[in-house]
Amino acid sequence: MVVKDVTEIKEKLARATRIMLNEGLFDLYGHPSTRVPGTDHLCVLGHLHGESRTLRTTSPEDIITVDMDGTLVEGNHEPPGEIYLHTEIYKARSDVNSVLHTHPPVTIALGIAGIPVKAVCLAGVDFGQGVPIFESACQIDTPEIGQKLAQILGNQMAVMLKGHGAVTVGVSIEQACSISLNLEKTAKLMLMVGQFGQVQPMSAEDLARYSNRGRHDSKESRKVFWVYYGERLPQ
Amino acid sequence: MVVKDVTEIKEKLARATRIMLNEGLFDLYGHPSTRVPGTDHLCVLGHLHGESRTLRTTSPEDIITVDMDGTLVEGNHEPPGEIYLHTEIYKARSDVNSVLHTHPPVTIALGIAGIPVKAVCLAGVDFGQGVPIFESACQIDTPEIGQKLAQILGNQMAVMLKGHGAVTVGVSIEQACSISLNLEKTAKLMLMVGQFGQVQPMSAEDLARYSNRGRHDSKESRKVFWVYYGERLPQ
Amino acid sequence: MVVKDVTEIKEKLARATRIMLNEGLFDLYGHPSTRVPGTDHLCVLGHLHGESRTLRTTSPEDIITVDMDGTLVEGNHEPPGEIYLHTEIYKARSDVNSVLHTHPPVTIALGIAGIPVKAVCLAGVDFGQGVPIFESACQIDTPEIGQKLAQILGNQMAVMLKGHGAVTVGVSIEQACSISLNLEKTAKLMLMVGQFGQVQPMSAEDLARYSNRGRHDSKESRKVFWVYYGERLPQ
Amino acid sequence: MVVKDVTEIKEKLARATRIMLNEGLFDLYGHPSTRVPGTDHLCVLGHLHGESRTLRTTSPEDIITVDMDGTLVEGNHEPPGEIYLHTEIYKARSDVNSVLHTHPPVTIALGIAGIPVKAVCLAGVDFGQGVPIFESACQIDTPEIGQKLAQILGNQMAVMLKGHGAVTVGVSIEQACSISLNLEKTAKLMLMVGQFGQVQPMSAEDLARYSNRGRHDSKESRKVFWVYYGERLPQ
Repeated sequence: MVVKDVTEIKEKLARATRIMLNEGLFDLYGHPSTRVPGTDHLCVLGHLHGESRTLRTTSPEDIITVDMDGTLVEGNHEPPGEIYLHTEIYKARSDVNSVLHTHPPVTIALGIAGIPVKAVCLAGVDFGQGVPIFESACQIDTPEIGQKLAQILGNQMAVMLKGHGAVTVGVSIEQACSISLNLEKTAKLMLMVGQFGQVQPMSAEDLARYSNRGRHDSKESRKVFWVYYGERLPQ
Repeated sequence: MVVKDVTEIKEKLARATRIMLNEGLFDLYGHPSTRVPGTDHLCVLGHLHGESRTLRTTSPEDIITVDMDGTLVEGNHEPPGEIYLHTEIYKARSDVNSVLHTHPPVTIALGIAGIPVKAVCLAGVDFGQGVPIFESACQIDTPEIGQKLAQILGNQMAVMLKGHGAVTVGVSIEQACSISLNLEKTAKLMLMVGQFGQVQPMSAEDLARYSNRGRHDSKESRKVFWVYYGERLPQ
Repeated sequence: MVVKDVTEIKEKLARATRIMLNEGLFDLYGHPSTRVPGTDHLCVLGHLHGESRTLRTTSPEDIITVDMDGTLVEGNHEPPGEIYLHTEIYKARSDVNSVLHTHPPVTIALGIAGIPVKAVCLAGVDFGQGVPIFESACQIDTPEIGQKLAQILGNQMAVMLKGHGAVTVGVSIEQACSISLNLEKTAKLMLMVGQFGQVQPMSAEDLARYSNRGRHDSKESRKVFWVYYGERLPQ
Repeated sequence: MVVKDVTEIKEKLARATRIMLNEGLFDLYGHPSTRVPGTDHLCVLGHLHGESRTLRTTSPEDIITVDMDGTLVEGNHEPPGEIYLHTEIYKARSDVNSVLHTHPPVTIALGIAGIPVKAVCLAGVDFGQGVPIFESACQIDTPEIGQKLAQILGNQMAVMLKGHGAVTVGVSIEQACSISLNLEKTAKLMLMVGQFGQVQPMSAEDLARYSNRGRHDSKESRKVFWVYYGERLPQ
């Protein structure tokens, strides 16, 4: 573990928090996390609310480090009550370096209606035949519930929490954020289309083009995404 | 009655008024009230409109004190025409310390459609099997209509006024505000889901978890809520 | 005709223009007018567009005076192409002192669907069993079309122009504006309710209460309305 | 080719980019182009993303010149990956001087539902019996796909790209922008009306009036449109 890495991780998680709040995917709550490379720890947004603080002023000092049991290793706040959605997904998915828990209103509405977000548009290419739905509105506040969630996520990049929110994952926090924003964007399209009847996902042929699409989903594009949503933050 | 208490009550009611206006639950009209501890009086937003003033600049000086008949005890304005929705609920509900009358657009739409807001999501856990609907769009401007409203409210925390608005109650003005905001938030979800068919509330099991949910609905959480919506006020 | 009256009329029409633009009822176009007391003339917003100006900076100097044939009497601009919707309504309705032509998006949507805005809520009490619909999307740019429009308006306070916009009238410009804002507000409610089936207007009993409702629709309330929407203008 | 012309073209394309972004028709991506008079070249927004820049700060220096094969002739950036939607439309349509590729959310929703935008309102008079729909969500990143798109566009002014976006054309960039904005505005109306059943376009009689409508669609009106949307840009 290199100190410089952890500093950068904390800065990115604080920025991710402010971006998600600004885009309406966090409200009073929500939390992102990232593995700490070379360790069995993760950095996650701490529980600020004991100090009556909202997420608006989240700074790197608000990011804490916990182990894979969710126990505090270092930091100024307690872990979030739902720390187990992070730890249990990391245990189940070695390909995942970042987990993000959001409260996206339209995705929640589709979840209540039992309609999985699907690859109906370019923003939805990561969602294929449909995002899995976790059927309970309970908090993910025990390791057992976290394991059940990880099982339902399977090898997908997102899971909808019925009546509650969503969780997305990524190789980086930038990707987890990008998938969260695309999930809600695609859900909004599906909500509009819903009144006209059932929506089919893109053709397999179109989807295949995008699984091999070069510049449109490159590292370059993830960097631009990060700048774009950063520019929308209040100054 | 302690003077310090009344000063704090008036500050909170003025702030509640500006928050409700800013969140779109008040428009030209709307009024919150709170019992004055140790007395048979209540503090309520006065009728500012004789001076052509809107609610945007509401200050503690605009909060008046009335008795349980709705008669002015102290203050710079007349009572609101609908004072009886406050007085009659206080008479019927000894557990209630605060009453809030709002004009939430989506809740009004569901009321017109005859659809009670239900516990379909986390924001809706206080609404169980459905919020009662007061079936007339009339003003609550006589003690008799106020009594009828209190009867329909029963032991619930909210009542929808068909074609008109809503009333929520709480042990504190913070709770009454929180319930009003959650009522409209849940109504918005139900409106989105409505096109896909009838919506079922959460399972009894999930609801039971939340009736005993610890930190998520603690005093701490109500304090954060108050800070969060305060931060959204125009500076 | 008193000069002071005309100055006040022009100030009010310019302010009405900026309010309607700010509330989304005017876009590039839209125009209010008022009779000039003691004359057979009317003041109306001139056609600014020859100078590539939008309505954002409308000032009293942009209000012109025309006669009942729509011919310019005094002012810096040509009359609007649709001047005949003003002149023909004034000829047909001696009780009307002000006419307002808007482009309200949701009212337009209901007009296309053939659904009249009705008294389904407090904001809609002026619309009774339904606002008449003018069935063509044509411009009201001849006296003959203006007469047809006046005939369809009849003795109502509003008329929907299918695929085009709306016209409201009043004893004053404040009332014509208030009715335009309430028309769109009520249309928004009806749009939300529409997915759940046909909407019935308020009961005759409730409507009767409001036709005799005292403070809630008094001159005082019109004055507050004017202040409220004025406060929302960009500074 | 006159230098002064190219300078003006680049300024207009940069301004068009910022307007489309501000109105929500561009997001991270989108690009306008214009023929360079007296040459076989076109000016088009370059691919800024290699420098992690968004469209918010687009300036005339970001506009590049390419030939009709999409090869860079002059400028600071590479051509966009979808340059072929521009080149192939120009080859097929000698009446077109400007092409605009947007990502309008409601138009995309209607495209997914298979519903062409039609002339249901004044804003839609350019869309007649229905805008053609390109049935694949693929990128227009080869000459062959560009030719197919041009074929589906035919002699219309707009084409919807299913699950992806839209392309509009014009005799000028102002017209292409105006048609893009009207396409989305009309789509929004159709989305609202959709819950009430199928929507018919205007009568042939009304449409005929507008094909010969004088001031309402004059050069003057295009100039005002440009000023109107320019005024809405952040300062």
